[in-house]
Amino acid sequence: MISQQEISVSTSGRGTYDLGNEIQRVVQASGIRTGLCHIFIRHTSASLMLCENADPSVMADLEAFMQRQVPDGDPIFTHTAEGPDDMPAHVRSILTQSDLNVPVTNGRCSLGTWQGIYLWEHRLAPHQRKITLTISGE
Amino acid sequence: MISQQEISVSTSGRGTYDLGNEIQRVVQASGIRTGLCHIFIRHTSASLMLCENADPSVMADLEAFMQRQVPDGDPIFTHTAEGPDDMPAHVRSILTQSDLNVPVTNGRCSLGTWQGIYLWEHRLAPHQRKITLTISGE
Amino acid sequence: MISQQEISVSTSGRGTYDLGNEIQRVVQASGIRTGLCHIFIRHTSASLMLCENADPSVMADLEAFMQRQVPDGDPIFTHTAEGPDDMPAHVRSILTQSDLNVPVTNGRCSLGTWQGIYLWEHRLAPHQRKITLTISGE
Repeated sequence: MISQQEISVSTSGRGTYDLGNEIQRVVQASGIRTGLCHIFIRHTSASLMLCENADPSVMADLEAFMQRQVPDGDPIFTHTAEGPDDMPAHVRSILTQSDLNVPVTNGRCSLGTWQGIYLWEHRLAPHQRKITLTISGE
Repeated sequence: MISQQEISVSTSGRGTYDLGNEIQRVVQASGIRTGLCHIFIRHTSASLMLCENADPSVMADLEAFMQRQVPDGDPIFTHTAEGPDDMPAHVRSILTQSDLNVPVTNGRCSLGTWQGIYLWEHRLAPHQRKITLTISGE
Repeated sequence: MISQQEISVSTSGRGTYDLGNEIQRVVQASGIRTGLCHIFIRHTSASLMLCENADPSVMADLEAFMQRQVPDGDPIFTHTAEGPDDMPAHVRSILTQSDLNVPVTNGRCSLGTWQGIYLWEHRLAPHQRKITLTISGE
């Protein structure tokens, strides 16, 4: 069995957005009990990650780390026509994930206790982000 | 066909652990000849990687690189309640992989000659790590 | 349905190589209409990425970023027998992807408008790189 669906996420600019509830809903609706849920973001300046889900300071620290590693307006970059945060957004996407696979067990995404699934918007401005979910299994 | 199983890895603290033999054993037991083996770590302070499998100095150099990029006790981090190596462990996990897919060919994970599958424990203390394997194909 | 095939890419040394046309060709030949295309590189000094496909300055900036983060001949590295670009190539591979999954929709890899699939050769010398494609679905 295979089930494919697109979801849309409205971001209010740079930051992380928990996708867990929406993904669980789509997985449960698919009727698949054992298999994989594939999550694919159709953009190159926002990305996906599996990350600690309990303490918001983890997200703040990740953001601080990325801003130090890949500063907005870094003079090393020449691709600047779309703003000082555009090329850093591409680099951040490359350093994290554009696609994730999560096991489906007993009809649900089977994450570890402290794991959440997040969209990381890397652009400063709000964006509409499209994600394709493909659930396969039996 | 789909086959799902959890394995457990005891780490003795920070470092890399070769998962190849255990994964091959599970793939062969599944009876699947052509498909994919999905490897998912249910934690956010240990991760997975495909890496050079011949010279131990590669692992030592990777560790040195990560310690320079994401130093333990980095004053940039505020999430410090669980120790100076905890937030760096989350960042290292984000920069590497929480899930991998490897082709299954002729009933075995079909890696390149110099590729191995490793768990990278990022915490200093020993941990028990759970990994979900999902093998699908025919 | 599952279809597995190996393709080969000749690189002329460090740089990015667009895999899109060749992958689309294999996906269409598989006859699979809805599912996933898994792309796996059988090497540890070249990697894969999904990246902006329109402006070549993005690739130049990614290269500049990686050369600053992981400089060739970095004195931190001890694995130097194969040259000053070998250990940096392993690190760059770890920081990017060795495997990718892309949704297949209506018989084609369904990328975002600005997304391309690239091989990133990290070694300075030309190499022959082998990639295993596994297309599954219905």
